Amino acid sequence: MKKAVFYHAGCPVCVAAEDMVAQAIDRQRYDLEIVPFAQKPNRVAEAEAAGVKSVPALVLEGQVFHVNFGASMADVKATI
Amino acid sequence: MKKAVFYHAGCPVCVAAEDMVAQAIDRQRYDLEIVPFAQKPNRVAEAEAAGVKSVPALVLEGQVFHVNFGASMADVKATI
Repeated sequence: MKKAVFYHAGCPVCVAAEDMVAQAIDRQRYDLEIVPFAQKPNRVAEAEAAGVKSVPALVLEGQVFHVNFGASMADVKATI
Repeated sequence: MKKAVFYHAGCPVCVAAEDMVAQAIDRQRYDLEIVPFAQKPNRVAEAEAAGVKSVPALVLEGQVFHVNFGASMADVKATI
């Protein structure tokens, strides 16, 4: 299984993207982990190290895909 | 089958996102159509009507997800 991590901050844009990713990703090929920063603030550093600049973002095998724009990581860090 | 349309303009950011979408989307649930504007300039109006502001973009059942940023639709229209 390939690893997929979806980072979000609970914003409306994040929720819509989370629904999309959860529905559309091929679960037979990807192990999807949802990481809400509000509940898991200790995962912020890992996300930034992976290249996440804003949320929502999907990281597939180390490659970052920013999906629409909900909030910058600076805003995320200011609110958690 | 649900309809998924991926619009792109051939830019490097578009190619990486196309690879991701092509690999990661659940083909048992989504019928994926790839639309390269360079070859299909007549699809630009449809994309804009759907809400596509930049490419690459994925439209799932009418909902637009801009994946990273390759080029604005204004740039796309200026080059096709």
